[in-house]
Amino acid sequence: MIGKSIGEISIGEKASFTKTITESDVYNFAGVTGDLNPAHVNEEYAKKTVFKKRIAHGMLVSGLISTVLAIKLPGPGTIYLNQNLSFKAPVYFGDTITAEVEVIEKDEDKNRLKLKTICKNQEGKVVVDGEALVLPPKA
Amino acid sequence: MIGKSIGEISIGEKASFTKTITESDVYNFAGVTGDLNPAHVNEEYAKKTVFKKRIAHGMLVSGLISTVLAIKLPGPGTIYLNQNLSFKAPVYFGDTITAEVEVIEKDEDKNRLKLKTICKNQEGKVVVDGEALVLPPKA
Amino acid sequence: MIGKSIGEISIGEKASFTKTITESDVYNFAGVTGDLNPAHVNEEYAKKTVFKKRIAHGMLVSGLISTVLAIKLPGPGTIYLNQNLSFKAPVYFGDTITAEVEVIEKDEDKNRLKLKTICKNQEGKVVVDGEALVLPPKA
Amino acid sequence: MIGKSIGEISIGEKASFTKTITESDVYNFAGVTGDLNPAHVNEEYAKKTVFKKRIAHGMLVSGLISTVLAIKLPGPGTIYLNQNLSFKAPVYFGDTITAEVEVIEKDEDKNRLKLKTICKNQEGKVVVDGEALVLPPKA
Repeated sequence: MIGKSIGEISIGEKASFTKTITESDVYNFAGVTGDLNPAHVNEEYAKKTVFKKRIAHGMLVSGLISTVLAIKLPGPGTIYLNQNLSFKAPVYFGDTITAEVEVIEKDEDKNRLKLKTICKNQEGKVVVDGEALVLPPKA
Repeated sequence: MIGKSIGEISIGEKASFTKTITESDVYNFAGVTGDLNPAHVNEEYAKKTVFKKRIAHGMLVSGLISTVLAIKLPGPGTIYLNQNLSFKAPVYFGDTITAEVEVIEKDEDKNRLKLKTICKNQEGKVVVDGEALVLPPKA
Repeated sequence: MIGKSIGEISIGEKASFTKTITESDVYNFAGVTGDLNPAHVNEEYAKKTVFKKRIAHGMLVSGLISTVLAIKLPGPGTIYLNQNLSFKAPVYFGDTITAEVEVIEKDEDKNRLKLKTICKNQEGKVVVDGEALVLPPKA
Repeated sequence: MIGKSIGEISIGEKASFTKTITESDVYNFAGVTGDLNPAHVNEEYAKKTVFKKRIAHGMLVSGLISTVLAIKLPGPGTIYLNQNLSFKAPVYFGDTITAEVEVIEKDEDKNRLKLKTICKNQEGKVVVDGEALVLPPKA
């Protein structure tokens, strides 16, 4: 139950996690965070927005990045230092989102890893873009 | 149900939202995102980590920032463009977290607002630090 | 708030509980158990499986058997010893499942009851089949 | 996103998943299944039972077995045929449960795998015991 140490990780290495984001995900996230923005939980309001329908929280979608880092690459024992996020396009209820991380820099002295982190929908459209900085578990 | 337009917002203006983060919040967030990192959901594992106990997901805590932006400042109608996050300290189950946003830059031509975004625990310790870029609702 | 004792229960006696299994049920169950199998939470993946759509967890559906035993027959105070399950057919989101239990053996000396336990969908198709062994509450 | 085929799996191979089972898990499971047995959700009632406190549902705990089969061994694409369960000891809120599966029989002709499936608590005590029969994904 321990992820990969920096020596076991290569530049260009990738991992991903995919989930269909549902209404119940959005409502549970709204309850947990308190973000009951009408864009997420009020269909009548949402109809009149530029998005036309209720959309998922950007931070919920971005949470899938944390999943990949914590479960797959580097995996358990990783310490999350930084995450930059650009919200590029709306995620609708029922969209299937793939969060993908790719190692782009290694600093073995400081045990730091920089990863490109993107979330794409089922059509391959990038919905969240960014970078993460993490400490992989020690060997 | 419409937030403040850029003309109604001043540099230095602040808003906040506070919530005690519970075990059920962390477990629901784990279920929504799929991030069942043992640091969050396995007490026996967590005892042996540097944090000594299960901790909340950094992205869950950061979700409170989204809450303030969406509900209070600028409020409903805001479009979230960017969020940078630094995870500074662990959040334990039962910690009471205040997410605070403060307007630090306005670009009225592009209708863009930059905000300092921090999350503090009940002792005033900063647990998440960062900046957000948003489009406030049009007047 | 006490169920039936073995003396009050007859061979052939039946009870049932019916629920429409929803997407939110499946997503909550996935979160509670950690079973984020793509067959349950990834619609794009599920399309390519033999089932064509996301399906409910067999263990979620089987949970309705526990409901009947605990709430109706024998009812509160029952101790659950054994459960055998055969997963016979997929359960789709929106299917209405009836869990039915029928007493098939009584051992009054040991205070043990064997029940046939089946789950059927709205078309009467058996989706889960099995047997349970329980200790009814003492008189 | 495809698990191991039967040819890639050896007799004696093991996999496990561990989670601390919380009050919120039990309450969510109770809501999903409808099993609001007072032993699970009524502390006043539970105090007077042989278990002295509210306990988790046996079927919830057993759900962790499904997690290991679906996520780890054989992994995605597995079809679950049968599960036998013996409930051996109570699981209390806060217990950390490890579900472990071990391959005990292979039938390459029928593409069937039999696994020993046990759940243990943080003290190593077996709380659920049983066997599973699955079809691993085709190579």
